[in-house]
Amino acid sequence: GSANAGFKYNEGDLDYAGKKAAGWYEIDMDVTGTTETDSGLTFGATVELDSDYASAVDGTEGLTGSVFVSGAFGTFTIGSVDPMADDSGISDIGFDGIGVDDVAGNSIYTGSADARWDYSTGALSLGVSLHTIEEDYGLSVGYDFGMASVLVAYDHDEFNDDTGNENDSASILLTAEMSGIEGQLFFADSDDYDQSWGVYAAYTTGALTLEAAYGDYDGAADAAYGIGAKYDLGGATLAGGVGKVDDMTVADLGVSFSF
Amino acid sequence: GSANAGFKYNEGDLDYAGKKAAGWYEIDMDVTGTTETDSGLTFGATVELDSDYASAVDGTEGLTGSVFVSGAFGTFTIGSVDPMADDSGISDIGFDGIGVDDVAGNSIYTGSADARWDYSTGALSLGVSLHTIEEDYGLSVGYDFGMASVLVAYDHDEFNDDTGNENDSASILLTAEMSGIEGQLFFADSDDYDQSWGVYAAYTTGALTLEAAYGDYDGAADAAYGIGAKYDLGGATLAGGVGKVDDMTVADLGVSFSF
Amino acid sequence: GSANAGFKYNEGDLDYAGKKAAGWYEIDMDVTGTTETDSGLTFGATVELDSDYASAVDGTEGLTGSVFVSGAFGTFTIGSVDPMADDSGISDIGFDGIGVDDVAGNSIYTGSADARWDYSTGALSLGVSLHTIEEDYGLSVGYDFGMASVLVAYDHDEFNDDTGNENDSASILLTAEMSGIEGQLFFADSDDYDQSWGVYAAYTTGALTLEAAYGDYDGAADAAYGIGAKYDLGGATLAGGVGKVDDMTVADLGVSFSF
Repeated sequence: GSANAGFKYNEGDLDYAGKKAAGWYEIDMDVTGTTETDSGLTFGATVELDSDYASAVDGTEGLTGSVFVSGAFGTFTIGSVDPMADDSGISDIGFDGIGVDDVAGNSIYTGSADARWDYSTGALSLGVSLHTIEEDYGLSVGYDFGMASVLVAYDHDEFNDDTGNENDSASILLTAEMSGIEGQLFFADSDDYDQSWGVYAAYTTGALTLEAAYGDYDGAADAAYGIGAKYDLGGATLAGGVGKVDDMTVADLGVSFSF
Repeated sequence: GSANAGFKYNEGDLDYAGKKAAGWYEIDMDVTGTTETDSGLTFGATVELDSDYASAVDGTEGLTGSVFVSGAFGTFTIGSVDPMADDSGISDIGFDGIGVDDVAGNSIYTGSADARWDYSTGALSLGVSLHTIEEDYGLSVGYDFGMASVLVAYDHDEFNDDTGNENDSASILLTAEMSGIEGQLFFADSDDYDQSWGVYAAYTTGALTLEAAYGDYDGAADAAYGIGAKYDLGGATLAGGVGKVDDMTVADLGVSFSF
Repeated sequence: GSANAGFKYNEGDLDYAGKKAAGWYEIDMDVTGTTETDSGLTFGATVELDSDYASAVDGTEGLTGSVFVSGAFGTFTIGSVDPMADDSGISDIGFDGIGVDDVAGNSIYTGSADARWDYSTGALSLGVSLHTIEEDYGLSVGYDFGMASVLVAYDHDEFNDDTGNENDSASILLTAEMSGIEGQLFFADSDDYDQSWGVYAAYTTGALTLEAAYGDYDGAADAAYGIGAKYDLGGATLAGGVGKVDDMTVADLGVSFSF
């Protein structure tokens, strides 16, 4: 699992706190049981015990589950899963994120999923997601060229709750990494919404990473942007960021780690 | 724990999906802590992390707990437990079940429990359940003759929410197994409901099991029945079934496994 | 984690049962993941899976989480935590408690917390709690003199929901232990409520402990008191108590254990 903890600031009030500054924590803890068949298939079930400050305030903390089978064909998962396009988008600034990536990803997808297939072979990764009730679906194709990679995702929402329409979305993420410099370029478009796009860059030297992100959505008046720094504590990361989202100054500072 | 995943079909719409066909998964995961006393008693607590598609749709996924003590006297459990009669009834067709067993068990019990005592010695098994608030109770006696076994259960519901009456139920399950053939015969009757009964038969050859079930309830117009097949994958089971329940064609296909 | 199970009685009806006598269980189970940094800091996340009969009846069973970092500076925790003053107060009678301690602690604190710092060095323990949204805070100082110890706690509630006021509370707990005799003396006062106080005494000989408690609150007509016994089963404890709380006879009998 993984977790983070720290402090958040939003000039226009944090949603979960109803005020400008407050503590924050988030925990993603998985309890997984697996069994292997004689033929080498792995069957497993995962219960996710997730808790964060926002769900604690809303009283919506809870568990979700999914069942999977893995083999040479990749992994099929059914239950609580994300649609393929959810795997794309730029990185965010800060220990938990100040929200620049959300603006950049405004038009990334509206569909949902209850089943998905993930497969990778060599540099190629493929995925298909499906919602067997809503009849939404999604596709993704990724290729790793070594110093650069590309991820293309498509999402079909059979009924967009916001608009009452069918909504198709497509997105592309380009990532490049060289000599401690990482760059991400993202673009998305959908039938129901205007285009959104974003860029993220990071420079790492020793334990320190400096980062900057910019995201824009044609349907919004203001672009979002921010700068941040991460420091590797050797097993955990201290990170902070500051920026503008929805014309409000936002910032966070805290730690994140895996266990 | 155990889990299953696959697809379900109901000609008259699946309750959880609001449509005829959809994916399904179910996870029963136990987290148990125990301690042993100097005198050899085992005290333990179990938190069940249960998730399935229906509770995910309803937003009722959650945890339940029970505390137990085991020793030469058997096991006492208090908390989230089932009444004794819940242990009886015929097996169902399919990977998760198409519902033939529910029709057969219509009159099996209406009471509930928050405490139970389970004891077995040699071929004999005994159990008593109790609801300390509702004042329901139940009894069961089982005996294993080797190739055949019998399980008799009695249930007292102090207040049946459906009818406003006290309701007493009794049931008997006969099971026989020989040369790869298994047969189950079940009969139940209660004060508030008509008689219900069912029969289940299975034939196993190698990794393959063929099965059939029939269930009827005197208060319903139509009997339920189905046929199915299970294939042992050596650590997991692939299973499917098809039948009629409430005059609707129902079917399922998927895998189940323990971990 | 820890758990208990048994039976409770209240002459004026148990809140969770709506009747005088019923079973009871309570489980506190922690799932914790930790990681250590190169510099020796421990980062961790805890998800608490808590279940008891009252929350089962209310349908409010759930999980809560907290994230912590430990080092030479003590432990910082953010998430689901108790304010410092919650660590004080007298012990209660019985396996789960009949409520004498609640009367004694009526004026102990009204604030809440989402973050706290715990530190101890030698005989001294210090703590500070804070609610980053409610802006409540608390302090505690403890000192262990060997056969006796003292714990002083202060709590500031920025907005007491009951009264609409700011509310400051202060409390002191004195504990002494010698030759199998343990005594506790507690006193609390707050701006919004009258003084409350309590005394607890226990005598242990071999596996048996006899105990008595008395608690009073100036704003209530009746004092609370009770006597009980605990028997050490060598890994679990059998305990029972009887007394008067709110002028009603209350009692409990059951087991408690850790795992």
